[in-house]
Amino acid sequence: MTKVLVTGFDAFGTTPVNPAGSVARKLDGMTINGATVIAKIAPAAFFKSIEYVKEVIADVQPDVVIMLGEYGGRSMITVERIANNFNDATRYQLVDNEGCALQDQPTDPEGPVGYYTTLPIRAMVKAMRAAGIPADISDTPGTFVCNHLMYGILHHIATENLNIRAGWIHLPHLPSVAAMECHLGAPSMSEETAVAGMTAGIEAILEHTEDIHDPIRSLWQI
Amino acid sequence: MTKVLVTGFDAFGTTPVNPAGSVARKLDGMTINGATVIAKIAPAAFFKSIEYVKEVIADVQPDVVIMLGEYGGRSMITVERIANNFNDATRYQLVDNEGCALQDQPTDPEGPVGYYTTLPIRAMVKAMRAAGIPADISDTPGTFVCNHLMYGILHHIATENLNIRAGWIHLPHLPSVAAMECHLGAPSMSEETAVAGMTAGIEAILEHTEDIHDPIRSLWQI
Amino acid sequence: MTKVLVTGFDAFGTTPVNPAGSVARKLDGMTINGATVIAKIAPAAFFKSIEYVKEVIADVQPDVVIMLGEYGGRSMITVERIANNFNDATRYQLVDNEGCALQDQPTDPEGPVGYYTTLPIRAMVKAMRAAGIPADISDTPGTFVCNHLMYGILHHIATENLNIRAGWIHLPHLPSVAAMECHLGAPSMSEETAVAGMTAGIEAILEHTEDIHDPIRSLWQI
Amino acid sequence: MTKVLVTGFDAFGTTPVNPAGSVARKLDGMTINGATVIAKIAPAAFFKSIEYVKEVIADVQPDVVIMLGEYGGRSMITVERIANNFNDATRYQLVDNEGCALQDQPTDPEGPVGYYTTLPIRAMVKAMRAAGIPADISDTPGTFVCNHLMYGILHHIATENLNIRAGWIHLPHLPSVAAMECHLGAPSMSEETAVAGMTAGIEAILEHTEDIHDPIRSLWQI
Repeated sequence: MTKVLVTGFDAFGTTPVNPAGSVARKLDGMTINGATVIAKIAPAAFFKSIEYVKEVIADVQPDVVIMLGEYGGRSMITVERIANNFNDATRYQLVDNEGCALQDQPTDPEGPVGYYTTLPIRAMVKAMRAAGIPADISDTPGTFVCNHLMYGILHHIATENLNIRAGWIHLPHLPSVAAMECHLGAPSMSEETAVAGMTAGIEAILEHTEDIHDPIRSLWQI
Repeated sequence: MTKVLVTGFDAFGTTPVNPAGSVARKLDGMTINGATVIAKIAPAAFFKSIEYVKEVIADVQPDVVIMLGEYGGRSMITVERIANNFNDATRYQLVDNEGCALQDQPTDPEGPVGYYTTLPIRAMVKAMRAAGIPADISDTPGTFVCNHLMYGILHHIATENLNIRAGWIHLPHLPSVAAMECHLGAPSMSEETAVAGMTAGIEAILEHTEDIHDPIRSLWQI
Repeated sequence: MTKVLVTGFDAFGTTPVNPAGSVARKLDGMTINGATVIAKIAPAAFFKSIEYVKEVIADVQPDVVIMLGEYGGRSMITVERIANNFNDATRYQLVDNEGCALQDQPTDPEGPVGYYTTLPIRAMVKAMRAAGIPADISDTPGTFVCNHLMYGILHHIATENLNIRAGWIHLPHLPSVAAMECHLGAPSMSEETAVAGMTAGIEAILEHTEDIHDPIRSLWQI
Repeated sequence: MTKVLVTGFDAFGTTPVNPAGSVARKLDGMTINGATVIAKIAPAAFFKSIEYVKEVIADVQPDVVIMLGEYGGRSMITVERIANNFNDATRYQLVDNEGCALQDQPTDPEGPVGYYTTLPIRAMVKAMRAAGIPADISDTPGTFVCNHLMYGILHHIATENLNIRAGWIHLPHLPSVAAMECHLGAPSMSEETAVAGMTAGIEAILEHTEDIHDPIRSLWQI
């Protein structure tokens, strides 16, 4: 039985309700095309988030890992192409939930510059749009905890040579967050719309089980 | 029994599914704080839309008229403050559903420059935000069929001295429309979110039953 | 000799340098197609601004009045179509330079709902674009001091039956203002670009000297 | 004598006048803090652009290489942080000036995932803002010819172990391009504003001459 691990975050910064958390919880326990979805909420903190998801991976033994985050200001579900080995938190004028704003340090001083997602991102975006959900490929997951965790887990999978496909999906603000004075004007997406997009994306992942070990091949072209 | 008439539009231009139509249908028959909602779909055409809604008003005898339209590109529910006595359709590179692009003609050559809504727009926006729905006051309903119909009905109510409060609400694209290639990147709002916002807005209208006949008083200040 | 009065504002709110002031000063004394430009800086305050520009009009005896303001967030020069007889300052979280935030009061309780500009706005926008300057018609000048002054002067010209064509042009932030932390990300336009756009716009006004006294005619169609 | 090579592009896609070309030409021959600027216009084409700039580097023997491109839709000068070893041209619905739309192929199959700029990007952005020019760090140079050339040259410098600091700066549309029907609404920046920003940026580079050979150190932190 294929297992899809979905990770989310809860409240952080100026986001009292995080779609990454609430959408993960909605997906938890669902069966999609014969695969089971298991959702976990990671701490929204540098390094701790990586340690937490590593442990969950060891415990759950998933075939696919989809990590969720919130990207305020984006109007679409965005599927990330690449994670980078740098952190620059102060530009967001945010600290993580441990009070830390990592800046100008790599996530792993020994690690490569970046990692490509191993999810079939173009097929996912096509499937989401076909399901009527606004979606696009993104070329950057930012430089805060999301990029950090995405890098950390892709690095872990690569260095441990795990047979897991993994990547990151960013969700827009929930409507209730976009209705707050401090976010007014930002686009939003409802939990139901995001869940429908995630379901279509997971179906696309399950349809594409190509070998992901060729370091040159651009898997996102699928 | 208080009757709230909600009018919508169906497909037009590059919008195959119009939230103004689908949200109106969802509201049809609902009871909100003791008031009944009756929904009707107007033709998306200059002048015909006004004639249609005038007939519906004569037939339904509503206490409140809320006209709905779609405003692609806006991220929030916007409650219109004013309707203007001019039309400028060609700037949208759109024609109405009768093939007409009214331009530089007033809606009524005998009518005043504009009409203020007689809905308590600030109270409505506050109620929508309190319900977690992104919403704002708008200073212009554009210069296409929406502004045209809003002007026409406010002019009708004023000249016939009807005891009806009326105004206009613009909805963002539905997600399925924002997922189309030609609208990609535009913000969207789900039908459920829009219905929740409409419900909160109608509740606010029902709580504010002040006299609307003082031509100077700014009713939107409520 | 045709006289074109251009009015501007100086610093207000979060704008330390106002393009409406600096562009007006650059235009001051210029001769454009045989017409002379006279620039004056109005106080950025409710009512005082109207009194000031009325006095300047009495003094200068202009043929054309172009009032300038700044509209942060817009990327183009926008030529306003209409001014409205209402004020709603608190939504901008701004006060005028006298500490006043007029709200929900008409500019003139005896005045009509609004006034159309008597400038040939479509011809102006076409001329600006032909000169390579981003420009568009706007359907609303907002609800702060700009709309207030535009309404006040159009009302004055109408009630005094003066033979003056008048209207409003909004300019984007200057680059130095968009470079401030609090405005970061907002589009901007340099003084030179704005002056070039204004020059093209004034040329278009001077080419269109049609009668402006027909209340129905949509002068902006030119 | 320090030599700063600035490369630009000329017309491509829907851009008849490219700020990357016109700004480069304006900078050509300038002396900034004792350094000489030499500008060259590269072909806007995959691979050819890399070959061209490699030859120019061999010829000019610069100390610093700043490559310029246009990023329509951005309102600020953006200094790129990283270049990636992938190409995805079709998403822009653009071909390069040779008719090629490279997709899902790496720029160099043997190369690493990406390269960090070796310019002091934070110091550059601070200097630009202090000079009143809207500027920011960018986390992605896109996936078209700009990213391709940036990657290619940083890869060349790294593999040849050249003592050259290099990076990429994206400029907004010129006003005349934003005034075109097809780009209407996009923010723009005048040539003069962009030249002032470039000058401030080059001054910042010249003030920061730290060793760039430590592969871990985040030079952009300066």
